[in-house]
Amino acid sequence: MPSKQPVAIVFDTFGSVVDWRSSLIADLTAYATGRGVTADWTALVDAWRAAYHPSMDRVRKGELPWTKLDDLHRASLNTLVSDFGIKGLSEGDLVHINLGWHRLHPWADAVPGLTRLKSKFIIGPLSNGNVSLLLNMAKFAGIPWDMIFGSDLFGHFKPDPETYLGVARLLDLRPDQVMMAAAHNGDLAAARACGLLTAFFPRPNEYGPHQKRDYAADQDWDIVATDIQDMASKLGV
Amino acid sequence: MPSKQPVAIVFDTFGSVVDWRSSLIADLTAYATGRGVTADWTALVDAWRAAYHPSMDRVRKGELPWTKLDDLHRASLNTLVSDFGIKGLSEGDLVHINLGWHRLHPWADAVPGLTRLKSKFIIGPLSNGNVSLLLNMAKFAGIPWDMIFGSDLFGHFKPDPETYLGVARLLDLRPDQVMMAAAHNGDLAAARACGLLTAFFPRPNEYGPHQKRDYAADQDWDIVATDIQDMASKLGV
Repeated sequence: MPSKQPVAIVFDTFGSVVDWRSSLIADLTAYATGRGVTADWTALVDAWRAAYHPSMDRVRKGELPWTKLDDLHRASLNTLVSDFGIKGLSEGDLVHINLGWHRLHPWADAVPGLTRLKSKFIIGPLSNGNVSLLLNMAKFAGIPWDMIFGSDLFGHFKPDPETYLGVARLLDLRPDQVMMAAAHNGDLAAARACGLLTAFFPRPNEYGPHQKRDYAADQDWDIVATDIQDMASKLGV
Repeated sequence: MPSKQPVAIVFDTFGSVVDWRSSLIADLTAYATGRGVTADWTALVDAWRAAYHPSMDRVRKGELPWTKLDDLHRASLNTLVSDFGIKGLSEGDLVHINLGWHRLHPWADAVPGLTRLKSKFIIGPLSNGNVSLLLNMAKFAGIPWDMIFGSDLFGHFKPDPETYLGVARLLDLRPDQVMMAAAHNGDLAAARACGLLTAFFPRPNEYGPHQKRDYAADQDWDIVATDIQDMASKLGV
């Protein structure tokens, strides 16, 4: 067990708790097939995720005012549907497809591991998703969060310090009483720079055949686990 | 069942979900007795609650900058300890006593009723308490909220419209997809003025012998129930 125990643990969500890639590919393929719309949905999902960081950077650099992730996702989707030459999708279809990010399935260890952690710690997502996205996802997937820390509470996306420090402020805790847990070394580095405790577990299949990094911890994070169940064991619950 | 069903239901907390008066009297009496400090804790608790609305009004009128409820409670407590001539409390004691508002017990119907409602609706507190207060209370009392809407998320106290409309905004819902539930007619009137659905249930013992109002619904609220269990039944869960 690590020498310092957190009071609260916040989790990166996309990739760390839920398997966005497999979930979206299956969801979109089934939906479009039912409507007779054909496209390379796997390629579209990969391109959609590739647009994620550049779209948030436009907000971070001030090219866009604060824009919640649902709206960034929708703008990227509109561009991709045009780029991929997909025909036959109504506005209602596009709304439904965009809300696919609210219908993501958790990795198998996530809900049982979080349920164990909830018995001892405050748990929540700290995600670039907006509150409604994360809350709908929790209801859909049965994720037992205590509180939802969406980026719209802070008007900032990770890795901006306002997100990590905002959690500590809202919980009236010191930063070192909060642990950031993620499958992404970069997220943890930003959290550690703000004084948070850190926990890493790998998700080597997050990007399918396109995974390039985050196969292992690249710093001495306070906890290094194989998944969220193992993280719970290492925290003594 | 009412003709319009909400997607989310938010609850007033102090008095509506938890019995602040009996909880605090018991908590403070036990704590002080253990330390050999004597006072009329029942009178202090009643005076503390009486200071609640005036203290928030100072923020609402701009006499104070935004101040979270924990800090308003503490300022009122300092004054009352002096007014009551209570001696022998350390700073640590005062911190502990102030956090008594985080250790309130739910009315008997609250947790089972909310557990039923959670199966069909998004549920959360919409309270003048801050996020940390409401979250610690939920962990202490086992209240199964999906999301915590503390007043510090909005920088406003109820009945300011920013609170009711802030919930709809964060959930990406229309106001009439959100229901406010409370034992206080005034809270519901303010919520209805913002377009929310409303549910009333009485808590005739909230103020003990000092109860003066809210024995019954004073408008045709969308739901009028005897308690939260009955409210769940009236919503078909």
